[in-house]
Amino acid sequence: MSRSRISRVDVTPVAFADPPLLNVVGVHQPWALRAIVQVHTDEGSSGLGETYGDQDHLARLTAVAAELPGADPYDTHGLRATVADVLRRGGGAADSFGGMLDVKSALDTTFSPFEVAFLDIQGRESGRPVSDLLGGAIRDRVPFSGYLFYKWAGHPGQDADSWGEAMDPDGLVSQARRMVDGWGFGSLKLKGGVLPPADECAAVEALHEAFPGLPLRLDPNGAWTPATSVKVADRLTGLVEYLEDPTPGIPGMAQVAQRTTVPLATNMCVIAFEHLPPAISQDAVQIVLSDHHLWGGLRRSALLAGITETFGMGLSMHSNSHLGVSLAAMVHLAAATPNLTYACDTHYPWKTEDLVEPGVLEFADGAVAVPTGPGLGVTLDREALGRLHEQYLSCGVRRREDTVYMREVDPGFQPNTARW
Amino acid sequence: MSRSRISRVDVTPVAFADPPLLNVVGVHQPWALRAIVQVHTDEGSSGLGETYGDQDHLARLTAVAAELPGADPYDTHGLRATVADVLRRGGGAADSFGGMLDVKSALDTTFSPFEVAFLDIQGRESGRPVSDLLGGAIRDRVPFSGYLFYKWAGHPGQDADSWGEAMDPDGLVSQARRMVDGWGFGSLKLKGGVLPPADECAAVEALHEAFPGLPLRLDPNGAWTPATSVKVADRLTGLVEYLEDPTPGIPGMAQVAQRTTVPLATNMCVIAFEHLPPAISQDAVQIVLSDHHLWGGLRRSALLAGITETFGMGLSMHSNSHLGVSLAAMVHLAAATPNLTYACDTHYPWKTEDLVEPGVLEFADGAVAVPTGPGLGVTLDREALGRLHEQYLSCGVRRREDTVYMREVDPGFQPNTARW
Repeated sequence: MSRSRISRVDVTPVAFADPPLLNVVGVHQPWALRAIVQVHTDEGSSGLGETYGDQDHLARLTAVAAELPGADPYDTHGLRATVADVLRRGGGAADSFGGMLDVKSALDTTFSPFEVAFLDIQGRESGRPVSDLLGGAIRDRVPFSGYLFYKWAGHPGQDADSWGEAMDPDGLVSQARRMVDGWGFGSLKLKGGVLPPADECAAVEALHEAFPGLPLRLDPNGAWTPATSVKVADRLTGLVEYLEDPTPGIPGMAQVAQRTTVPLATNMCVIAFEHLPPAISQDAVQIVLSDHHLWGGLRRSALLAGITETFGMGLSMHSNSHLGVSLAAMVHLAAATPNLTYACDTHYPWKTEDLVEPGVLEFADGAVAVPTGPGLGVTLDREALGRLHEQYLSCGVRRREDTVYMREVDPGFQPNTARW
Repeated sequence: MSRSRISRVDVTPVAFADPPLLNVVGVHQPWALRAIVQVHTDEGSSGLGETYGDQDHLARLTAVAAELPGADPYDTHGLRATVADVLRRGGGAADSFGGMLDVKSALDTTFSPFEVAFLDIQGRESGRPVSDLLGGAIRDRVPFSGYLFYKWAGHPGQDADSWGEAMDPDGLVSQARRMVDGWGFGSLKLKGGVLPPADECAAVEALHEAFPGLPLRLDPNGAWTPATSVKVADRLTGLVEYLEDPTPGIPGMAQVAQRTTVPLATNMCVIAFEHLPPAISQDAVQIVLSDHHLWGGLRRSALLAGITETFGMGLSMHSNSHLGVSLAAMVHLAAATPNLTYACDTHYPWKTEDLVEPGVLEFADGAVAVPTGPGLGVTLDREALGRLHEQYLSCGVRRREDTVYMREVDPGFQPNTARW
């Protein structure tokens, strides 16, 4: 049996339409960016990865891609060393993922899409789904949470989109109704940090009334002080399964955690392995949101899962705006992570186009069946890839800038971080 | 491509001759026990695992083996659930690994040999070495440390063995000379806990003089009080790369760690994932000795490696008396563990027979080349397996009982734990 080697790697930036979803630092731009990585081998197999499409990140991806021909698609340790080397040699521009993330190094984020593509190749070559390469699927369907946003009716200067405005409890309940009816979600997450905390609490209460028994989450992305966070936690005790990042930073989260029984989750203060020791020693968070794009691919996300299990923490999964390659990877990872007991986040319902062939990743009862074909189990739709790449070329967006975009509408806007 | 399923599992207890090596709880019996696990698939492939051969452990292995036909050799999560289920239903007799180990559950130890065999099958089916399934070998040769023991000339009532007696510094230096000359070891470990600490310090000093520059380790298996441990550490500062388990228990180790700059290693107080949180919060150990037999196989040993890296701890590797299947697994694991920066322990030079076909696992310059063939890369010598199984049947030893055996010679013997 011969052992394949990488022959070529393509990195393709794409853009897809995104609604005006509001958050603590501003509002989603009309176009969300992603990069699609295609890794080809000399034996004719290939693998896919998907990651952020910001310009600085693209530069890093492209620099790594150039180094990979000749590499062994099983050698993810070698891949990691290559990425580290490329970044050391200056491929490592400053991180830029929308202004909310603070990581020391771009190593894990740059490594991730290539690692996923390598695993996709391994699965295709061995005839096994990626979940098998991670120890096997312990669930055949992965539940997701409906992701609710405060939003404008449409982008400035454009018609209202099909979702329409949601700036109050009624609007969010209508949005949730469409999510639950259309996708069958069995839990709901509200992105907060947009309105004063009392308004967002009222929204959660309205959701609880409209969907009794459905687990709810609120994520203000650090919009509150520790004192406000405790007040919100008191008000929402019994209504939310967890509060995500009520206040910024590990010490602030630790202050809140000491004064509430509501579990605190994070995708802001613990987003890299270096954050785990201080967070654990301060008991700052009870649930970590995994994200393979951020944590260095699927195997390092499995490592994160093992760490949270070892230290008695819960595990959930974060999502940025993403396409089908990412969804497939998320589903395989979640399926093969025994202690991932919360429904995963996903922005998937918010997008109107994709670049994988349809039929594999369908939502039913709020869950996606784990693809059973070799590798990730999804196939790139080359025509769609071309179209989304054309959109990238023509849209003019080159990095995620929620705050800059918000200021086009509200010139005095300041991020709401720890505002209330 | 069809997907294989387990068709049959054989668990074979074996015994091999072992010299009278002394330790804190007594002395090695004339026969060391191991169990060889052979997992066969309906496609004709098979995989190997090796583990402890104690009677209680064998009962657990046999109970698990009976459940595996029909299982998927990629589904290690399912395997783990099966093992847990078997133990819950009463396959879980009390742990018995020689009286020095304290783990809550037999899950990881029982799971381990099957997981290794599953990975061996995966490697054979995909034409890849097991190290590739762990992310790829980052070193093509794995360095080992020469493992020195106080020992009698021969077992009571038997002739002296080829190593002869080593009960003082001269004896140990001679033993070390044979280890270094014969195998090329570039570091040495002395199993202590046998003589008063001053004698063992003198032995380390003699080794340092005889082999200047060679990294040395001393492991008394918890023979000392914290106060004595600090005195020994002071005396051996600069001579040892680490002290292993000078005193029993996490709190005791933490006391010692606070009062010395010599790194403390352990294979006694941190031997399961449940021990990591208290050890880390107390900064009790600086180096954890990995052991895939104990920590639940190769992937969970990779998890341990990731945890030690995340928390800034060192990583080394422990060994019990073992045969070639274990050595192959240790080499693949060590090769694919980037942060395993210490030479691994091995009892390999002490044995005089094996059950894998020769030629693959050769020591040169104190290191073993990583097998490059599919799976573990070793082949069972069926004749040797039969012979070692016959030895098991006839030798009468059914569990490791170093203390019981020592009392045949010294009826008043008490383990030296925390004696000095």
